[in-house]
Amino acid sequence: MQNLATAHPREIRAQIREGKWRRPTGGLAAGYAQANLAVLPRDLAYDFLLFCQRNPKPCPVLEVLDVGSPHPVRMAAGADLRSDVPLYRVYRSGELEAEVTDLHDHWREDLVAFLLGCSFSFEAALASAGIPLRHIEEERTISVYITSIQCVPAGMFAGPLVVSMRPIPLDRVAKAVEVTARYPMVHGAPVHIGDPAALGIVDIARPDYGEAVTIREGEVPVFWACGVTPQAVARQARPELMLTHAPAHMFVTDLRNDEL
Amino acid sequence: MQNLATAHPREIRAQIREGKWRRPTGGLAAGYAQANLAVLPRDLAYDFLLFCQRNPKPCPVLEVLDVGSPHPVRMAAGADLRSDVPLYRVYRSGELEAEVTDLHDHWREDLVAFLLGCSFSFEAALASAGIPLRHIEEERTISVYITSIQCVPAGMFAGPLVVSMRPIPLDRVAKAVEVTARYPMVHGAPVHIGDPAALGIVDIARPDYGEAVTIREGEVPVFWACGVTPQAVARQARPELMLTHAPAHMFVTDLRNDEL
Repeated sequence: MQNLATAHPREIRAQIREGKWRRPTGGLAAGYAQANLAVLPRDLAYDFLLFCQRNPKPCPVLEVLDVGSPHPVRMAAGADLRSDVPLYRVYRSGELEAEVTDLHDHWREDLVAFLLGCSFSFEAALASAGIPLRHIEEERTISVYITSIQCVPAGMFAGPLVVSMRPIPLDRVAKAVEVTARYPMVHGAPVHIGDPAALGIVDIARPDYGEAVTIREGEVPVFWACGVTPQAVARQARPELMLTHAPAHMFVTDLRNDEL
Repeated sequence: MQNLATAHPREIRAQIREGKWRRPTGGLAAGYAQANLAVLPRDLAYDFLLFCQRNPKPCPVLEVLDVGSPHPVRMAAGADLRSDVPLYRVYRSGELEAEVTDLHDHWREDLVAFLLGCSFSFEAALASAGIPLRHIEEERTISVYITSIQCVPAGMFAGPLVVSMRPIPLDRVAKAVEVTARYPMVHGAPVHIGDPAALGIVDIARPDYGEAVTIREGEVPVFWACGVTPQAVARQARPELMLTHAPAHMFVTDLRNDEL
């Protein structure tokens, strides 16, 4: 499996489909975009798509599949969203019911699959620009916080903006903004720089998801809109059924990050 | 009325609402974005929003209003889409039924209003960059063509890409691309440069909408995705009811072009 970092996404998806890869996808298929997956019944799809349209920073839509189809057209021809993600979650009425490795038993003709941008893309660009990524240095899961900022609601979908945080040296903050602003389809420029309290974050050392990382002297916390937002909001709406990827187990697409 | 070129959009909308301005809106409220209007029943709104998501160059979504609401939130607080456009069109089953100056009699609780980007914005930027706008020089309606390129379909909505054409001197083409690429919410960079036949345009001197303009020696035709596309496609789908602005009679928003 060592070669999966440089393998083509098609090969990686084939390995996943055959049950040979059940782990997180970070670092796989370097240079290719990975995506969040959210699947909802058709009668909720308009409100969810409108929620994404109104909140493009946390919810950048990469592709919406036709009703009932598990086959992406633009992001990965020949793929099957029921089998090509290493681990899935099944939510009923907002509650986690199961983690599964295949969605065939849960798929329905009235389901709509959404692929949303993921910040893996701009992390590679940040690293290329010489900006340190503390959670990677310290081998922790990135720090993620629920803020006091409300997203713009749409129908049944409403809730707070969720952000990821990376500590950045003061003299690299402008560069970090510049680099990530180039990738609006994977959350783009930061939503806030420097003051956790302005986002309603009481204790930066206690993230709501993931793990805390060290913020060194001369660094400030920089906050980006996070792909957890749409799933968190969708769960809060308690739809009768929602299927998603399991955290960090993303869908690997055929599009290069620079094509987004 | 001479001062409407520099008036605030609120003032212009008030004049329109009071019936004092029934003409095209080009040149009004310099620097502020103007928008295409399309209103459809809720049961068609998901397919139409998805069509826009899949075809962002011809169909850049500026705002989708809540079901039944004629009051934009983001683009123009306090406005009323039933009265603040100088001239409307009412389509039934894809056929033009009437042109009216007020939509109150046609409004329904199940209608969804879409505001879509309009190329007025990047024309000001092109002019600022010293790029000639032939249709303005020659006082003609801009040349618009139906192409042989099909949009990505979504549900009942499918049809050809419609483009506007501006002749640009060869040594200014790169600049024209650079300038318009900065405005993805109003159609962005050109979709094609130089060869009408590549778009299925048989005779550049005979546009499908608007009027022909002179293409001088040393100029090439440059084609941009056009805001007529979503309306043309929506009409082709023959929805039971669709309300729109009349051509060139746009909705004037409170957002500056540079805020888009």
